[in-house]
Amino acid sequence: MKATEKLQAKFSEGKHICVGLDTDVNKIPEFMRGSSDAVFEFNKAIIEATVDEAASYKINLAFYESEGIAGLELMEKTIDLIPEEIAVIGDAKRGDIGNTSRMYAQSLFDHFKFDCSTLHGYMGKDSLEPFFEYEDKLHFVLCLTSNPGAADFEKMKLENGNYVYQEVLSRVKEWNTRNNLGIVFGATNDAELRENVANFEDLIVLLPGIGAQKGNLDEVVNSFKEYNNNNYLINMSRGIIYAGSGEDFALKARDVLTSYNSKIKYLTIS
Amino acid sequence: MKATEKLQAKFSEGKHICVGLDTDVNKIPEFMRGSSDAVFEFNKAIIEATVDEAASYKINLAFYESEGIAGLELMEKTIDLIPEEIAVIGDAKRGDIGNTSRMYAQSLFDHFKFDCSTLHGYMGKDSLEPFFEYEDKLHFVLCLTSNPGAADFEKMKLENGNYVYQEVLSRVKEWNTRNNLGIVFGATNDAELRENVANFEDLIVLLPGIGAQKGNLDEVVNSFKEYNNNNYLINMSRGIIYAGSGEDFALKARDVLTSYNSKIKYLTIS
Repeated sequence: MKATEKLQAKFSEGKHICVGLDTDVNKIPEFMRGSSDAVFEFNKAIIEATVDEAASYKINLAFYESEGIAGLELMEKTIDLIPEEIAVIGDAKRGDIGNTSRMYAQSLFDHFKFDCSTLHGYMGKDSLEPFFEYEDKLHFVLCLTSNPGAADFEKMKLENGNYVYQEVLSRVKEWNTRNNLGIVFGATNDAELRENVANFEDLIVLLPGIGAQKGNLDEVVNSFKEYNNNNYLINMSRGIIYAGSGEDFALKARDVLTSYNSKIKYLTIS
Repeated sequence: MKATEKLQAKFSEGKHICVGLDTDVNKIPEFMRGSSDAVFEFNKAIIEATVDEAASYKINLAFYESEGIAGLELMEKTIDLIPEEIAVIGDAKRGDIGNTSRMYAQSLFDHFKFDCSTLHGYMGKDSLEPFFEYEDKLHFVLCLTSNPGAADFEKMKLENGNYVYQEVLSRVKEWNTRNNLGIVFGATNDAELRENVANFEDLIVLLPGIGAQKGNLDEVVNSFKEYNNNNYLINMSRGIIYAGSGEDFALKARDVLTSYNSKIKYLTIS
């Protein structure tokens, strides 16, 4: 099943939240930390508690790579826990010259079996094409990010009047000949979202920044609703997975997720 | 020993070539491919044959990640082969929001013990700062790359008259308060190199693109020489490591490297 189809099946059920498994052993409930397999047990409990409410899962590779080989083993085991019909994003933000990007794509898709990638587009089309060639996968190119540093380069104004990130948006649309591209557009950028949402067209939009980074859920949902665009995926990591710190942490995570889902449904129909 | 000191010690001996260990099991000599540890044996032979002539080694993480966990084990073993006094670049082109970049930095420096990183700066200063905080390490931010796609975004003209890559250059210099930054500037960009070399100041410059990508060695050496700038490191991967395909492949690699070293010395003193 194509990654886009997996996501759109969830969107059509009103599910738009991607649960980010940025699991840090120093942030999981204290009572779990003793066990050697603590992070795996944590991920397992979170996935089991959220699987019927999540639109997708996002695995932030940095959190696993930081533990070296043991971390990658853990990542592999975590991916295996997620049912086939749910798209799993390999959030690795890769991008390099062609022969190197091909290797990264092999790692993400052939080896780890991710459904989606996140990509740095700075090096241009030929650095992204080896990912795009995985037709059934979905590739989110960084457009406007949720961090303060987005102002440094992404929001620089070009001679043609566009901001750099807008030029990225227009090129990604141009490159979307296989219908397997998306963009990352940080939910902390309310004004920019309102200004650009009409131009997203068929791209699937991944929005990080709600929760710990203070993005505004209502703004996001209403902006997309205004253009009758249902192709958006809101990532939440810390806000969901660390919602509780007691024995009931997984239920607490589920509660946060379901309350966001209810809010989105309410905003969408009201 | 600081990464910058390791490199500058080599530069002062007239050594400017970084040997890129982008090792692909399908490209190593056929007679080696049967063995289960073929890529390790290949890397070992290349390192032993080139260690006294190389200014540095660059490990392209993609080529190891593409083999998953076994690939990372191989990478670890390869890094261990390189003597402490030679800087090893972890060419991973990472860059993400702060808490994630911190994890990537941990992976590169605490776990794998690399001396240098290569970074995507698109997301701005706060996405790079967790790397920069590793003061003794050296961080090469992508400025102008060697691939055709460099024209897509890097060479877009800004409202202020600069190209995007020039703005990156000026920001990286501004951020270099710890004297531990460098840039990647593709050797395929002759005209841009001549135009900007006077502005590199104290940054160490990593130049990929000589060899397989057709960059011009003479141009690079002469451009730096003109400004009495010795802080440059020319990466060669395929052109060196696959110079031979017979039993003497390592010697062939050494021959290519020493001939480049001689050429650089000749150009520098002539």
